Amino acid sequence: MSVLVVGSVAYDGIETPFGKVDRILGGSGTYISVTSSYFTEPVRLVGVVGNDFAESDIELLKSRNIDLEGLEVDSSGKTFFWAGKYHFDLNMRDTLDTQLNVFEHFNPVIPEGHKNSDIVCLGNIEPGLQRKVLEQVENPDLTIMDTMNFWIEGAGESLKETLKLVDVLIINDSEARELSNEPNLIKAADAIKKMGPKILVIKKGEHGALLFTDGSMFSIPAFPIVDIYDPTGAGDTFLGGFAGWLDKTDSYSDDNLRRAVTFGSVMASFCVEKFGPNQLLELTDASIAQRYRAFRNLSEIPEQKLFKI
Amino acid sequence: MSVLVVGSVAYDGIETPFGKVDRILGGSGTYISVTSSYFTEPVRLVGVVGNDFAESDIELLKSRNIDLEGLEVDSSGKTFFWAGKYHFDLNMRDTLDTQLNVFEHFNPVIPEGHKNSDIVCLGNIEPGLQRKVLEQVENPDLTIMDTMNFWIEGAGESLKETLKLVDVLIINDSEARELSNEPNLIKAADAIKKMGPKILVIKKGEHGALLFTDGSMFSIPAFPIVDIYDPTGAGDTFLGGFAGWLDKTDSYSDDNLRRAVTFGSVMASFCVEKFGPNQLLELTDASIAQRYRAFRNLSEIPEQKLFKI
Repeated sequence: MSVLVVGSVAYDGIETPFGKVDRILGGSGTYISVTSSYFTEPVRLVGVVGNDFAESDIELLKSRNIDLEGLEVDSSGKTFFWAGKYHFDLNMRDTLDTQLNVFEHFNPVIPEGHKNSDIVCLGNIEPGLQRKVLEQVENPDLTIMDTMNFWIEGAGESLKETLKLVDVLIINDSEARELSNEPNLIKAADAIKKMGPKILVIKKGEHGALLFTDGSMFSIPAFPIVDIYDPTGAGDTFLGGFAGWLDKTDSYSDDNLRRAVTFGSVMASFCVEKFGPNQLLELTDASIAQRYRAFRNLSEIPEQKLFKI
Repeated sequence: MSVLVVGSVAYDGIETPFGKVDRILGGSGTYISVTSSYFTEPVRLVGVVGNDFAESDIELLKSRNIDLEGLEVDSSGKTFFWAGKYHFDLNMRDTLDTQLNVFEHFNPVIPEGHKNSDIVCLGNIEPGLQRKVLEQVENPDLTIMDTMNFWIEGAGESLKETLKLVDVLIINDSEARELSNEPNLIKAADAIKKMGPKILVIKKGEHGALLFTDGSMFSIPAFPIVDIYDPTGAGDTFLGGFAGWLDKTDSYSDDNLRRAVTFGSVMASFCVEKFGPNQLLELTDASIAQRYRAFRNLSEIPEQKLFKI
């Protein structure tokens, strides 16, 4: 099986109440592909970086066995740079700097050998570019997309065209409310599924996530982490775990989609424990299995036998 | 086994975006005892009502087999009356009218035959009165209390005296944050457990509830209800289901506490489907069992076998 990831590869400057890093590897494409690499191979990354992209970061991605044939190096400029500062309430952040650099003219070209990828992950990029990717791939088993308020507000019609074409949408609760114009998340999910995606995941930060499939709903809590060091990339990491598990197992049953949401939550819970993708680079099969088990224990409702149906 | 419930018995005027009732039976004692009555007996209610309390409401409580020996009828005044209006966001409400009436001088007297109750439920009343109840009962198996921001802010020291004496505290998330002066709920739970209660339940409204026991944590989602008609009494109903199940089963294991939280959630999810306690008066064992099963299905994480510990 195989996963194709299209998204940004960037440098981030991050400040949280727990510390500060001036420049660390980031971007949706990075987080999704690094996370998927714990589950399956090949993981193929399509993106663009500039003339300042460090050889050590190329090596880091290669160390995770990520196929970089589709990672363009554009020597005409620098790599996408973003800097932000999180508030004490880590759900709030201020963007301090955005330098699109070579990412401004990103035009995803899928290498010939990647067009047959089984699962296609469309990171949070302009909806028209997401469609360009879908036009190039050949009948994938599953297409998964992310988006954000910026595109919902600024490119609503284009976004709706893309939504018609994908199987899975993964967004957060405020985005779901804004996209559907519906405050109740259950009604929002119904409205969004009518826009195209058969499967919808709504991420709720510290309150966990909801999975909506055909007529069924699944709710998973967030893992209780006392000190969240840096939430950057947690949403992309969720997507990477979700996609990676599905590619590893090649099953789209309700039960297996629940496992995928759980692995997404497992990986996101690791992501926030250190700055940038640092914690994601140190995981083992055992640590992933242990946290999966912890999620099951956290949310397990024992059977009762005294009230009869 | 037996449950003693001490709380308000009141009339409520309720307006929500879905309708309005001018006067309906309410109060924490009512919701807790009606709900517990689906699980166990005897359920003993201690409270006070005025000269306007309808005979039909006495009959209603009796129809649920609730022991009313401790329900004082004070002919010198009227029954506690509260009126409120909920916003479109049902987490917000304005109090339109509060007439304490005979409840202003409520002084709980526990009938001799009720002093040996196994489980004692202290509804949301003044913390000093809660202690007066505890002084009268004889070595109960479990004491459970509710409180609210009003007492946290206005009677903090008295509340802390009561907290030292109870086994279980059930409060909502904003109350937990205020009581502990700690925004992170995991840290808040640690701080609150140091104040006395060995068991803590934090209710999070549409995001479900958390159970903290000795070294263990359980997270349950809220049941997805598209149209919540009236949230009045949902918190008291949760307490009634929690206490009722524990009294029915007489086990305080971690697993059984999880079942108790789940039955609390089941009953609260019914409560909000109609105005006042109306829906709570129409339940059957089968409807309760079915919703319990629905909660298990909603939050069940299937096992995975590919990652090994």
